[in-house]
Amino acid sequence: VSRGLIGLDWGTSSLRAYRIDGDGRVIETVMAARGVLQVEPGGFDAVLAEVAGRWLADAPGVPILAAGMIGSRQGWVEVPYARCPIAPQALAEALHPVPTARGRVWIVPGLVCEGAFPDVLRGEETQILGAVHEHPTAGTFLLPGTHSKWVPVRDGRIERFATFMTGELFAVLRQHSILGRLMDGEADDAAAFARGVGQGLDPDPGAGGLLHRLFSVRTLPLRDLLPPAGVASYLSGLLIGSELREAMGSLGLHPGGPAPVLVGGDALVARYVAALALAGLPATRAPADAAARGLYQLAGTAGLLA
Amino acid sequence: VSRGLIGLDWGTSSLRAYRIDGDGRVIETVMAARGVLQVEPGGFDAVLAEVAGRWLADAPGVPILAAGMIGSRQGWVEVPYARCPIAPQALAEALHPVPTARGRVWIVPGLVCEGAFPDVLRGEETQILGAVHEHPTAGTFLLPGTHSKWVPVRDGRIERFATFMTGELFAVLRQHSILGRLMDGEADDAAAFARGVGQGLDPDPGAGGLLHRLFSVRTLPLRDLLPPAGVASYLSGLLIGSELREAMGSLGLHPGGPAPVLVGGDALVARYVAALALAGLPATRAPADAAARGLYQLAGTAGLLA
Repeated sequence: VSRGLIGLDWGTSSLRAYRIDGDGRVIETVMAARGVLQVEPGGFDAVLAEVAGRWLADAPGVPILAAGMIGSRQGWVEVPYARCPIAPQALAEALHPVPTARGRVWIVPGLVCEGAFPDVLRGEETQILGAVHEHPTAGTFLLPGTHSKWVPVRDGRIERFATFMTGELFAVLRQHSILGRLMDGEADDAAAFARGVGQGLDPDPGAGGLLHRLFSVRTLPLRDLLPPAGVASYLSGLLIGSELREAMGSLGLHPGGPAPVLVGGDALVARYVAALALAGLPATRAPADAAARGLYQLAGTAGLLA
Repeated sequence: VSRGLIGLDWGTSSLRAYRIDGDGRVIETVMAARGVLQVEPGGFDAVLAEVAGRWLADAPGVPILAAGMIGSRQGWVEVPYARCPIAPQALAEALHPVPTARGRVWIVPGLVCEGAFPDVLRGEETQILGAVHEHPTAGTFLLPGTHSKWVPVRDGRIERFATFMTGELFAVLRQHSILGRLMDGEADDAAAFARGVGQGLDPDPGAGGLLHRLFSVRTLPLRDLLPPAGVASYLSGLLIGSELREAMGSLGLHPGGPAPVLVGGDALVARYVAALALAGLPATRAPADAAARGLYQLAGTAGLLA
């Protein structure tokens, strides 16, 4: 009988630790503001003891599997990227062991995908495997965020992926650019958001691209054509609509065709569901704990649960 | 005989005051860090005395003409935008008088252009008139900057214009985003700049748009494919190349066809000349003091010099 697994989704700014039983059920979760950038070099072992010490004491020898920026240059150990396309079996074979005071911690490598330039991810590969397990026939997975990822998958294999800097652009433009000056309040105005999505989706090259359209975030409120309370929502919609236009063009997705499966937190997923509907792609959503599911699947494939 | 003109190019962050003689020659220039945002409400009259008091004492009653953000909501008086298309005569008729302790100051209205959304400018209309006077047959003027302007002109009339937020995006991404972290040094690497321009110009939609391509600014140095000293230049090139692709598509400009006339400062103009050459558009450059020339032209058309 399996002893279960301790799964770590260890990102830049936060850590989620999952205690998973032998049947793959998450029986306890710890969320901590102990992301890679918040931990001193050499301090990862202590953080592991802090969040999972009791679980380790309860089940000595339980396997530990970690995914995310923990495998980056700023993390515990830099684990080389694995290459796309890649099947779950190959990813499981590339797990990287780190000896620690509490036994080995296995780290999932991130992925690199060569194209016009190299694209990279760390952590999303594990979420995708978890989501694929629930949606085995889906052709595209979409993980919105600071660096949004679009991921074509076939027969369980991650074919390639493309990153879009949508979330980061929203944050820096809102906080540091002239576009933030006429903004008032949160990005929670659904009508203004939809208007921005429409502006971003517009396929007419005569309407310019993103560098031009961003100026509408300034001129619409300046000309009293958008209330200040709607400006943040409009900017969010414009950026997400632009991402959809770029990604659909790049991946060959069409209105009315197969829609991506969304993987992520509630608020952001709701925003993308609304935008995708306006683009003619009624998306479905993966279970919220895709990372825990992916960690369990990978551990099983790697033979760590036996 | 004309008494000449005091011309003010009064922008957001700086003020240039020109003493111009009756033949249109600039005989003295004062540059001051007295932009609209640096002057308290009610303080514009005092700044005028500070930079041009001696000129006014020398030539009582000399006309004063000001262009730029001085006519905005944050300026001396908010002057309503004039509408495109517009000929010099109509712009001259729309000059807005402000009574002051030193006689009337005339303010040039900015322009609004209606399209998918309203586009606006203040100050550039005057630089364009100055540049058109030297390049009467040119079809497009390009004023690079924080908010880059592309301006089709026919028979001396400003037909329309489009703004691109290239310079502002460069500044916020460099200073505040993850893309700035792997940057080292200035944006002065010509080869890295050219590489970025090529990435921005790439017409292949399969290569994604700007939101995707921006991620190359992170991954190329991360994968040791671009030295840290070249990253700022590469980002600059990528943004300018993207602007060129957007604007050429939007305005119907083609490699080998008529090229825009550049209006602006040396360093930025040199950068755009290099990028336009890579796009197949060998640009020419307007005289550096286009604002002063435009102020003199406008004053003449308005009958202020008589």
